[in-house]
Amino acid sequence: MSQLDKDIISMRDLSKDQVTGILERARYMDERLKARDPPRSLAGRMIASLFFEPSTRTRLSFETAAKCMGGMVTGFSSPKGTSVEKGETLSDTVRTVEQYADAIVMRHPFEGAARLASEAVSIPVVNGGDGSNQHPTQTLLDLYTIWKHKGTFDLKVALVGDLKHARTTRSLAYALGMFGADIALVAPKGLEMSTEVVDEVRQQWGTNITHAHDPATSLGDVDAAYVVRIQKERFADPLELKRLQRSYRITKDTLASLKSDAIIMHPLPRVDEVETSVDQSDHAVYFDQAYNGVPVRMAVLEMLINGGDA
Amino acid sequence: MSQLDKDIISMRDLSKDQVTGILERARYMDERLKARDPPRSLAGRMIASLFFEPSTRTRLSFETAAKCMGGMVTGFSSPKGTSVEKGETLSDTVRTVEQYADAIVMRHPFEGAARLASEAVSIPVVNGGDGSNQHPTQTLLDLYTIWKHKGTFDLKVALVGDLKHARTTRSLAYALGMFGADIALVAPKGLEMSTEVVDEVRQQWGTNITHAHDPATSLGDVDAAYVVRIQKERFADPLELKRLQRSYRITKDTLASLKSDAIIMHPLPRVDEVETSVDQSDHAVYFDQAYNGVPVRMAVLEMLINGGDA
Amino acid sequence: MSQLDKDIISMRDLSKDQVTGILERARYMDERLKARDPPRSLAGRMIASLFFEPSTRTRLSFETAAKCMGGMVTGFSSPKGTSVEKGETLSDTVRTVEQYADAIVMRHPFEGAARLASEAVSIPVVNGGDGSNQHPTQTLLDLYTIWKHKGTFDLKVALVGDLKHARTTRSLAYALGMFGADIALVAPKGLEMSTEVVDEVRQQWGTNITHAHDPATSLGDVDAAYVVRIQKERFADPLELKRLQRSYRITKDTLASLKSDAIIMHPLPRVDEVETSVDQSDHAVYFDQAYNGVPVRMAVLEMLINGGDA
Repeated sequence: MSQLDKDIISMRDLSKDQVTGILERARYMDERLKARDPPRSLAGRMIASLFFEPSTRTRLSFETAAKCMGGMVTGFSSPKGTSVEKGETLSDTVRTVEQYADAIVMRHPFEGAARLASEAVSIPVVNGGDGSNQHPTQTLLDLYTIWKHKGTFDLKVALVGDLKHARTTRSLAYALGMFGADIALVAPKGLEMSTEVVDEVRQQWGTNITHAHDPATSLGDVDAAYVVRIQKERFADPLELKRLQRSYRITKDTLASLKSDAIIMHPLPRVDEVETSVDQSDHAVYFDQAYNGVPVRMAVLEMLINGGDA
Repeated sequence: MSQLDKDIISMRDLSKDQVTGILERARYMDERLKARDPPRSLAGRMIASLFFEPSTRTRLSFETAAKCMGGMVTGFSSPKGTSVEKGETLSDTVRTVEQYADAIVMRHPFEGAARLASEAVSIPVVNGGDGSNQHPTQTLLDLYTIWKHKGTFDLKVALVGDLKHARTTRSLAYALGMFGADIALVAPKGLEMSTEVVDEVRQQWGTNITHAHDPATSLGDVDAAYVVRIQKERFADPLELKRLQRSYRITKDTLASLKSDAIIMHPLPRVDEVETSVDQSDHAVYFDQAYNGVPVRMAVLEMLINGGDA
Repeated sequence: MSQLDKDIISMRDLSKDQVTGILERARYMDERLKARDPPRSLAGRMIASLFFEPSTRTRLSFETAAKCMGGMVTGFSSPKGTSVEKGETLSDTVRTVEQYADAIVMRHPFEGAARLASEAVSIPVVNGGDGSNQHPTQTLLDLYTIWKHKGTFDLKVALVGDLKHARTTRSLAYALGMFGADIALVAPKGLEMSTEVVDEVRQQWGTNITHAHDPATSLGDVDAAYVVRIQKERFADPLELKRLQRSYRITKDTLASLKSDAIIMHPLPRVDEVETSVDQSDHAVYFDQAYNGVPVRMAVLEMLINGGDA
C-alpha cells in the first residue's frame, strides 16, 4: 500500500490504495476504541485545530481523535479576535501556528483555503471543510460506515435529497465510484447532481449511475440510502417545497419498502428529513456514522503525523 | 451505601445515602488534591462539557475536576456556531456527542433541558444548571463546605438575602432539611422563600424553619450564614433598594454579632453583599467554597462514570 | 543566579541575573523541544489561561508551553459570558481561579490589570499583555531570539517603524540597554520613541542610542533590525502615509544594504511592513521568533511554578 501525501485536502488527491489504507487503519482504531485501548501514537504531539468557521461536530471529533491517541490540542473555535481580524494573511497565520504544532486541522469559509495553507507550511494540513468545496474526512467516514456495515462495496448506494447543493454527496459519489459501487441518484427535479460531477465519476471509474425522482419507488433494491436535506432557501413556492419535503422524508413507511439489511445514513445535523421514529430501527446507522468520525480521523492524523504506510 | 443513578439532574433525585456517599468521596478527593496526588480514575475517559449558556466558574471547576483525574475534555463554552443554531434538536446534539464521550456535563438556559438530554442518551449526564431550575453540584458543594468546616449538620444555618429568586437557596434548604439542620430564613419583605418550597422541606424532613427580616438581629445564634444577592431589577423604588442592600450587606460590624466559629458562605460572584474587608476574617469561607467545587465534582464524575458505590 | 519573584508583570521588575537565568533556561527548553523530549516538569499542574482580550498568538504559545511540559490548561479566550460580565471584580475572579490553578497567565485590555491580579492572589501571575502597557514575555522572546541567532549582546540593534506607539519596542529598548547593546532608533518624524523612554534607558544603562529617519541609509551597520508597523490611524494625510510606508517597508532591496549576517525581526502579525519575498532569506527570523515564544514561556512557567533558581 502507498503512503499518504503530506496533506489531506480533497478526495481527488487520494489513490484507491491510500483510501483503502485509511479504511483499514480506521477499522483497527475502531477495535482499539471499543476495547478502550487506543494506541498512544500521538503522545507528545500538538495538533492545531483552527476553525475559522464554527463546526462543533467536526471539531469535537477531530479533537477527540487527537486526544484519544495521547495528542495535545490547541487552537480556536471561531476566528473572533484572532490575528486574522488584525489583517494577517492566512499564510502568515498558519506559518506561525506551524511553529507550535505537528499538524493543522482547519475549517475555513473560503474555497481553496486549505490548499493555500498546505502550500504555506511543511507540516500536514487536514481540510476540515473549505466553504462548499471539500471535506474529505466526511467522505472517508461515510465510506468507512458503508464498509463497516456491509463488508463490501459490491453494492447499490442511493444518494437522496438535494444533490445539487449538498457538498457531501458529490464527494461521496466520486469515492463510491472509486470502489466500484453502483449509484442511484434520487433527487427532486431541478435539484439533481450536476452533469459535470456525474460525467466525471462515470468517465473516471465506469460507474453505473441511475437517476430517479421519487424515493417511494426508488429505494427497494438499494443496500444503503444516504439522505441529505432539501433546504427551504432553494424554493420560491412554499407549497412545492412542502410537497417535496414530505415525499423525501424517511418514515416508518419508507422502512417497509427497503431491503431487510439496507442501511440509512445521514451526515447530521438533520432537521426533519428522517423521522425520529426511524432512529430505533436497525436500518438507522447515522449516529454510528457520527461515531465513525473518531476512528477515521484517528487513522488520518496518525498516518499523516507519523508517516506510517497507508 | 447505595450507588448513584445514571445521572445527576436534581437534588430531589438523590437519596440521603447517595448524598452521604458523595460527601465522603469528596472529602477523600479533597485530601488527595491537598497531597497533590489525585486519583487517575478518569484516565482515557472523555468528558463532554456542553455549555449552551456561558458559565466560567462552573465550567472551569468541572473541567479541572475531570483533568485532575486524568480525564480528557472536549465541548464548547457557548452555543455560537454549534449545530443547535442550524436547527438541530437537543436530543440529536447529545446523541451525537454521546458517540465521542463517556459523560456529559451540561448547562442550558431552559428548565428541563438536562432531564431531556439524560433521557436521550445512555451515558451519564450532570446538570450544570438548567435555567432557574436546578444546579445540583452547586448544592452538593455548599453542603460539603458546611460539613467540612463544621463536621456535622447538627447546626442552625441562615439563608440570607433574596430567597424568592435565588435558585441556590431553594435547593440548599431542601438538602439541609435532608440532613437535619435547622434553617433560619432571613429575607426582605416580598423576597421571602416561596411557601411551596418551605412547606415541602418541612413536610418531607420535619425541618425546623424560622423566618426573620433583619440580618442585624437574626444571625447571633447561627453556625453558618449563606448570603445571596438582592438584585436591583426586583425593585421599582431605588431608595428602598438602597436601604435593603445596606441592611443586608455583611460588614465587619456583622461579624461582631456572630458566634465566634460561625462561617459566612456565598455562591459567588458577589457584587457588594459581602464587603471585601470581611474576606480576611476566619468567618469567610466563600473562596474555599469555590475550591470545594473541584473535589465535589471529582467525586460526582468518578462515581457516575466508574459506577463506584456511593 | 537569583530566583524569580512570585510574578512576571513587567521587564522592569526583573534583574539582569533573572533575565539571564530565563534566557539560559529557554535555551535548554529549546534543545529539549528540538529533541522532542521536553521536561515533564508541570505534570499535574493546572495553568489558568485568562484572556479578557483575545490574542491567539500569545494564548496558543502559552498553552503549548504548558501542555508540552505535561501541564493542564483551563480558562477562557474572551471575556464573553464570564462572571466579569455579571459585575464581579477582577480581584474576586482571580481569587476564585486561584482555587483551581497553580498559575495564572492573563491578558487584559486595561493597564495595571496584571499587577492588580498579582496582588490579589498568592499563586504566580504572568502578564500576557495589559493594554498598551507591558507584555514582558514578548520582550523576553525578542531578547532570546537575538541571543540565539547572534550569541552575544555586543551588537547594534535597530528598532524600525512607529516607535511612538509600539509597546514592544519600548520594552525591548530597556532590555537591550540592560544587556549592553547599542540601539539605533529609526522612526518617521513625529513617530519617534518618547524622550522619557530614551532618557530612562540611557540613564539606567548608559546605552549608546542614535536616531535616524531613513531606513534606506540607516541599517547598513546593524546586527539586527526589529521592524514594527506604521499604523494608518496615525496619519491625516494619506499621501504622506503612503510615502512613509513605502520607505519603511523591508524589501529585497533593503536586504542588499544589510550586513550579511544581520537578522530581521518582527513581532507579527505583519501587514506589509516586510515583503513576503523576504521570508525565504536567511536574514528573516520572524517565524523562528514566533517559535521562540514556546521555549521562553516554558522557562518562565517552570521557574515560577516550580520555584527553580533562575
